[in-house]
Amino acid sequence: MPQEKHTNRRVVLASRPHGAPSEAHFRLETQHVPEPAEGQVLLRTLLLSLDPYMRGRMSDAPSYVPPVPVGEVMGAGTVAVVEHSRHAEFQAGDWVVSQNGWQDFALSDGRDLFKLSGPVLKHPSWALGILGMTGFTAYMGLLDIGKPQAGETVVVAAATGAVGSVVGQIAKLKGCHVVGIAGGAEKCRYAEEVLGFDTCLDHYQEGLGERLKRYCPEGIDVYFESTGGKIFEAVLPLMNNRGRIPVCGLIADYNSTQVPAGPNQLPLLQSAILRKRLLMQGFIITLDYADRFDEFFRKMSQWVAEDRFVFREDVVDGLDNAPETFIGMLEGKNFGKVIIRVAGDTPPQ
Amino acid sequence: MPQEKHTNRRVVLASRPHGAPSEAHFRLETQHVPEPAEGQVLLRTLLLSLDPYMRGRMSDAPSYVPPVPVGEVMGAGTVAVVEHSRHAEFQAGDWVVSQNGWQDFALSDGRDLFKLSGPVLKHPSWALGILGMTGFTAYMGLLDIGKPQAGETVVVAAATGAVGSVVGQIAKLKGCHVVGIAGGAEKCRYAEEVLGFDTCLDHYQEGLGERLKRYCPEGIDVYFESTGGKIFEAVLPLMNNRGRIPVCGLIADYNSTQVPAGPNQLPLLQSAILRKRLLMQGFIITLDYADRFDEFFRKMSQWVAEDRFVFREDVVDGLDNAPETFIGMLEGKNFGKVIIRVAGDTPPQ
Repeated sequence: MPQEKHTNRRVVLASRPHGAPSEAHFRLETQHVPEPAEGQVLLRTLLLSLDPYMRGRMSDAPSYVPPVPVGEVMGAGTVAVVEHSRHAEFQAGDWVVSQNGWQDFALSDGRDLFKLSGPVLKHPSWALGILGMTGFTAYMGLLDIGKPQAGETVVVAAATGAVGSVVGQIAKLKGCHVVGIAGGAEKCRYAEEVLGFDTCLDHYQEGLGERLKRYCPEGIDVYFESTGGKIFEAVLPLMNNRGRIPVCGLIADYNSTQVPAGPNQLPLLQSAILRKRLLMQGFIITLDYADRFDEFFRKMSQWVAEDRFVFREDVVDGLDNAPETFIGMLEGKNFGKVIIRVAGDTPPQ
Repeated sequence: MPQEKHTNRRVVLASRPHGAPSEAHFRLETQHVPEPAEGQVLLRTLLLSLDPYMRGRMSDAPSYVPPVPVGEVMGAGTVAVVEHSRHAEFQAGDWVVSQNGWQDFALSDGRDLFKLSGPVLKHPSWALGILGMTGFTAYMGLLDIGKPQAGETVVVAAATGAVGSVVGQIAKLKGCHVVGIAGGAEKCRYAEEVLGFDTCLDHYQEGLGERLKRYCPEGIDVYFESTGGKIFEAVLPLMNNRGRIPVCGLIADYNSTQVPAGPNQLPLLQSAILRKRLLMQGFIITLDYADRFDEFFRKMSQWVAEDRFVFREDVVDGLDNAPETFIGMLEGKNFGKVIIRVAGDTPPQ
């Protein structure tokens, strides 16, 4: 079912998953396209960003943002075109980054919109990735919390993902030894040959701890955490004194339904934090760094313009495919930043 | 056996404990008093500081400092008097803070000495406590990592101990709501009535988590960690977003011999760090803040001179009693900063 002019397709949360979500937890609905009031714009979704944090919004466990209510449309960052404007600062045909969610059309009062112009329009989807939320996450988490110094060793999980791939490339720019961790030989080869990481280790293979030790002969100074689980357990013993661990995600745990069996490794982590004087800090980019987006965007735009970054996307056509694609992403099936192409318009010149 | 002029009594590590240390892990030896070479001073120990971190030095697990070798004297900060000087900057009769360890006499080349003068000589033992290593730990951990703001809630474990009592009092000076945790009704009463904490909860009583919740109605912004174990488990669910956890010790774990049984609470901590964007940071005062001692000393001396602090000591006479006192301290039997009075001299005027 492709995008149409008078129908708003929307993917709503049908029920809350306990454990891994399935397609049954989503429902595709249709409704009339809403009408903008004075001061609003009507937006048509072109590109939809799928990101692991959305799993958290499907649950009603206490979190930093309210969950998606059952029956409501799933939230998401989007690239959209202004279809109709009753807002002084926007006109029909403008391309914007917006928060439309998993649907064809949405209204906005303009406050959450970011107008695309200049070089970003060459790759509008990058506004959801390397020049958007995931690139911003990589940039701030690595530089503001991780504070890598030239010559230090930086380990990054989910190395070919939207965040990890940018973390590793920034760390290389800063003169660090960069070791990625990814799922499967193809991703690892890509991280080494295309992204330019010094090494990338396949966590599907046995003995991750031993291999990490071999490829981090001077220990680990910064571990950029987005996965948790067994990768964290392999990294922790190798952390150097005064090491830093920015935590932007824990995808390995998102679908867990109970506290795992013992032994209880909590004291091991506490002891490592004390003995090695580690810093471990969680952050939510939109809450903690909103005031530094311009700084990030300027710097990253420059790096991108200088062709210093590679950014791979995993683009899937069709809003209907969002649930299946999202579920696959939580299992690591994607290869690069996941984007749903909801409609295939050509950017304005 | 009291201190004598020609004999150096020394308590050495007899063997490494597996689990809780007993007196059998220490041995009292005697030797001749050493002779200072040119550029050295001979120091006679007057006061000896006993601190929980020494348990770590008894083990040969990897740590931030080398362990005490078996057969060698136990290390410790001390207040000592210069008996004989062959060093231009010291003369016989000077009182200094030194690192003599658990023995009557030691040599020094002067580099690790801090001369006592002025108001500190009124309470020389304070140079090992509120104006020394433990006060410095409290000051830096709370202010540099915890960064408490007026109106925030600060929880401090081991609330009547050498570090915790100072943490809580600084937090009160900064306008915080301060909740202590201590072992037993007497310590709790003391924390409230003498130290001026808003509340102090007895961790020997049931339902610590429930009581904490009641007395921290707005959650916890800073938790100053020195114990670990069940206290940490009670605190964690109450941490507020952007909370800070300086970690200066984990006394509950020091004697543990194996990873505790499940469930594995490591993912719970990781998840809390992510969702609540917590900062958790370990520090070792002597390694991480050596360059800020003067700043601390100036400020704390001023507060002490203004009578804004109470500092309780648990003074035990006799070097022979150091092992038993140390073992008791690890079990929480002390009440205040533990000092061994090795010799009872009167400070110079």
